[in-house]
Amino acid sequence: MKERYFEDLKAGDRFKSDAYKVSEEQIVSFAREFDPQPFHLDQTVARQTMFKDLIASGWHTAAITMRLFVQTLNFAEGAIGLGVDELRWPNAVKPGDELQVETEIVDLRESRSKPSHGIVRLRNVTMNQRCEVVQTMTASALVLRRSKTITR
Amino acid sequence: MKERYFEDLKAGDRFKSDAYKVSEEQIVSFAREFDPQPFHLDQTVARQTMFKDLIASGWHTAAITMRLFVQTLNFAEGAIGLGVDELRWPNAVKPGDELQVETEIVDLRESRSKPSHGIVRLRNVTMNQRCEVVQTMTASALVLRRSKTITR
Repeated sequence: MKERYFEDLKAGDRFKSDAYKVSEEQIVSFAREFDPQPFHLDQTVARQTMFKDLIASGWHTAAITMRLFVQTLNFAEGAIGLGVDELRWPNAVKPGDELQVETEIVDLRESRSKPSHGIVRLRNVTMNQRCEVVQTMTASALVLRRSKTITR
Repeated sequence: MKERYFEDLKAGDRFKSDAYKVSEEQIVSFAREFDPQPFHLDQTVARQTMFKDLIASGWHTAAITMRLFVQTLNFAEGAIGLGVDELRWPNAVKPGDELQVETEIVDLRESRSKPSHGIVRLRNVTMNQRCEVVQTMTASALVLRRSKTITR
């Protein structure tokens, strides 16, 4: 797959990732390591909580979103996350859900501190197989500029 | 360890987590699954990037922060994340780093939609063993109220 540089993007560009199926085992395994709370750990216990079902940690959803985003955009030498704003989880992710990420490029500008890179501002919306939104966020990332890779 | 309820907190309360050591194997394993970019995957490749070293995915730092936060606060029936703002990674996490989270309770209010719960707004600052800040964020979470657990 072709590698993408800063110059390959313009504001308003949209991308859609492949789908990623989340299993009960993955939800429990992530939660045991990073978010050991009852509604993420055990189906039987989770049924007695307000969710009435096992749900994935929001940080698991965020991590899956990163994977899908990285694979879809495929930036040359990678994208370096600067920060994330307005990270929200409007619906829970449950076992068997298939997640897909839609990325919209919001804004692009050159980096003053790193002239080899540009700063991309983007919005990622993660949806399940019923097109319900399970996560939204805006993020800024440093992305390599093509011109500078030739002259450096 | 005593379980904590909404009523046990007041604005200005501060908590410090235990330390969590991050190994090279953990950084690479998380990145393979969720953030497959060169500076997270391979020490040799990472040395040729702008970081000159292997670094952890920001989402790995966020997940470790959640683990330390959950273990420290130990909310009864868990804390349900509503959203996160201003998630930043001012310094990279590298193999062998020991992370610790400082939590400050910023604001508390009752939940109108879920009278059994209150909404806690908090700030989490994650530091390494040199007291360098590797992550900051503010978050809102639903936390169970003690009074309501007696009467329901």
